[in-house]
Amino acid sequence: MKRNISILGSTGSIGVQTLEIVRRYPTQFKIVALSARNNIELLLAQAKEFKPDFVTIEDEKLYLQNKRLFDGIKIFAGENAQLEAAKAPKSDTVVAAVVGMAGFEGVVTALKHKKQVLLANKESLVAGGRIVMDLAKKNKTEILPLDSEHSAIWQLVQNQKKSNIKKLVLTASGGAFYSFKKDDFKNITVEKATKNPNWSMGQKISVDSSTMMNKALEIIEAHHLFDTLNIDYVIHPQSIIHSIIEFVDGTSFAQMSTPSMEYPIAYALFYPERRVPATPPIFAFDKNLSFLEKREDVFFFPALAKKALEAHEGAPLVFNAANEVAVELFLNKSIGFGHILNIVQAVVEKGDFPTLKTPADVRLAHEDTYKRVKQDYKQYLSSSICGK
Amino acid sequence: MKRNISILGSTGSIGVQTLEIVRRYPTQFKIVALSARNNIELLLAQAKEFKPDFVTIEDEKLYLQNKRLFDGIKIFAGENAQLEAAKAPKSDTVVAAVVGMAGFEGVVTALKHKKQVLLANKESLVAGGRIVMDLAKKNKTEILPLDSEHSAIWQLVQNQKKSNIKKLVLTASGGAFYSFKKDDFKNITVEKATKNPNWSMGQKISVDSSTMMNKALEIIEAHHLFDTLNIDYVIHPQSIIHSIIEFVDGTSFAQMSTPSMEYPIAYALFYPERRVPATPPIFAFDKNLSFLEKREDVFFFPALAKKALEAHEGAPLVFNAANEVAVELFLNKSIGFGHILNIVQAVVEKGDFPTLKTPADVRLAHEDTYKRVKQDYKQYLSSSICGK
Repeated sequence: MKRNISILGSTGSIGVQTLEIVRRYPTQFKIVALSARNNIELLLAQAKEFKPDFVTIEDEKLYLQNKRLFDGIKIFAGENAQLEAAKAPKSDTVVAAVVGMAGFEGVVTALKHKKQVLLANKESLVAGGRIVMDLAKKNKTEILPLDSEHSAIWQLVQNQKKSNIKKLVLTASGGAFYSFKKDDFKNITVEKATKNPNWSMGQKISVDSSTMMNKALEIIEAHHLFDTLNIDYVIHPQSIIHSIIEFVDGTSFAQMSTPSMEYPIAYALFYPERRVPATPPIFAFDKNLSFLEKREDVFFFPALAKKALEAHEGAPLVFNAANEVAVELFLNKSIGFGHILNIVQAVVEKGDFPTLKTPADVRLAHEDTYKRVKQDYKQYLSSSICGK
Repeated sequence: MKRNISILGSTGSIGVQTLEIVRRYPTQFKIVALSARNNIELLLAQAKEFKPDFVTIEDEKLYLQNKRLFDGIKIFAGENAQLEAAKAPKSDTVVAAVVGMAGFEGVVTALKHKKQVLLANKESLVAGGRIVMDLAKKNKTEILPLDSEHSAIWQLVQNQKKSNIKKLVLTASGGAFYSFKKDDFKNITVEKATKNPNWSMGQKISVDSSTMMNKALEIIEAHHLFDTLNIDYVIHPQSIIHSIIEFVDGTSFAQMSTPSMEYPIAYALFYPERRVPATPPIFAFDKNLSFLEKREDVFFFPALAKKALEAHEGAPLVFNAANEVAVELFLNKSIGFGHILNIVQAVVEKGDFPTLKTPADVRLAHEDTYKRVKQDYKQYLSSSICGK
């Protein structure tokens, strides 16, 4: 039986890699819809190759300027166009690969329409956690993680008795500046912060990786996906081990592969079978696997994530929104690298968390917090981490 | 429900560690019988503490000299006394921890009496492979491995679809001489060869670890336990990862713990639950995990094991018997370290493998091969590996 797939964010890194696997296994998948923000050229090429029932594009103005290019292709344009892809009646599976809160509504819509959601969008679970999980449950569908760490844990915990598991341990590369002292933070430029040695990824995610915010967000996601607070992390610079589960008897299982998103994507697409992803696998045991000591005095976001989870259901949303503002300010060079840490910590410690009951609450609370932090951020710059 | 246990080899390392776990969980286990070769003092202490229904001792002469010490303890003495423990009607579980072919008959007897066998004895499966596995099947019982590598694989393959698994990868510490050149072998003394940096173990097993014979025997065992020839190994000096399974999609799972036999013993004792073994577990991720290149030109026993498995059902028995002779000769300083490799290789390459149909065939073929190699070994000393 073919899987019928809509891809939200088809021109991004996860979208492209999903389509590479689909290309390799043409008889197993039918692409129903492809959804992009503004990469018209790639979207057109994908449409011509994979012949979806329709495509959607968010940037309506850009579309109208290039309308003739889409002759013979059914298309929806505009801010909510991706929701057509999320609920397309002919699809059973939605790959949710839009970055940031912009991806939230797509996930919610897909779940409401009983689609199985292959989730790459972090913010849906970070901001909307319980609400999103309940939505999946209520609609008798499920969320399968595409993230390498969560896919690893999902693979490892299958068929394990919950009472045997002591904790989930996410691995973190530590990012490019893990050995830096606080004083060195002032030398971290945008250019340095947006390179990642192991993975190729977007700018926002590269910065989140360097601040360990990435790991903090993953801890929050893991809490919702696997229904536990027993979550830890370990610094493992090579990114070969993607996660570990530790059993009560002191034994651990680690999941390993060369660092490529093709593995977790293929795992979710073929589950419960395993198939060679687009790029044939190599695992040569040619690397040393090392673990570094935690530096929670400097890189405190993972610890802050756990505090936020324990403090209030709305706290992770605030944590995430504050970081979104701070990273934007860093990327447009309004603040220094260390200020990201300052701002997020100060906002979360201030409290004032929203009550969340519906997806609309989540969306509005995110927007409110985002605006508030953007307006107030300067008052947080003087705190202890370091200056620009 | 209590597990009722007989321990064959109760005064050896595995026996002692099994009893340490039993001591920690007194309500879960009843010791039915304890069986030793000649360590009267420890056997007596164990009998007094664990109050088995009876004990057995192989060295009858020694027993008769010390008879009065066993006042009030039911005892069987003599060569076949351990078989009383193996078939004790009140036991449901037999820990088979006698070293060498001396442990074979105990395993066979336990299986014939439908006991679940927790297997530490390597030779039963190496020499008797299919016959022993068939015996378990016929008697509707099972063999649970106590070896850390096989326990790791057993843990990892549970509930995995066989079609998803590409191969089993045993880890090998490489032993103390893994970096040695052939020319350096002449400097390896018995004293140096019987120390092991990661595990505390007997002399024979330490030498087998240094020659990689240990890994070769484990490959043969794994073949029988997990019914596959897709078995590989990797050199991993820290002995933290105990085995790996590699899936067809290029993903791997590794099983890890600090190197202690308590983990696999406790796993088999409590399966399918997991419990803290006698020593509380610590796993601090404080070590680098490294993998070294294979040196199959020098350490060719693992490759020879696979050839033997493919060549003839009787070949692993000959391989094992030849090694038993060679290690004895090395330990009593009749030959050099490199000669062990010479002798075993030459004997296996000569062929002349026995046909095995019954447990008696296995026992006799082992004795015959042992005698033959002990008589002829000098003719093999001149081959290529290196001299004394």
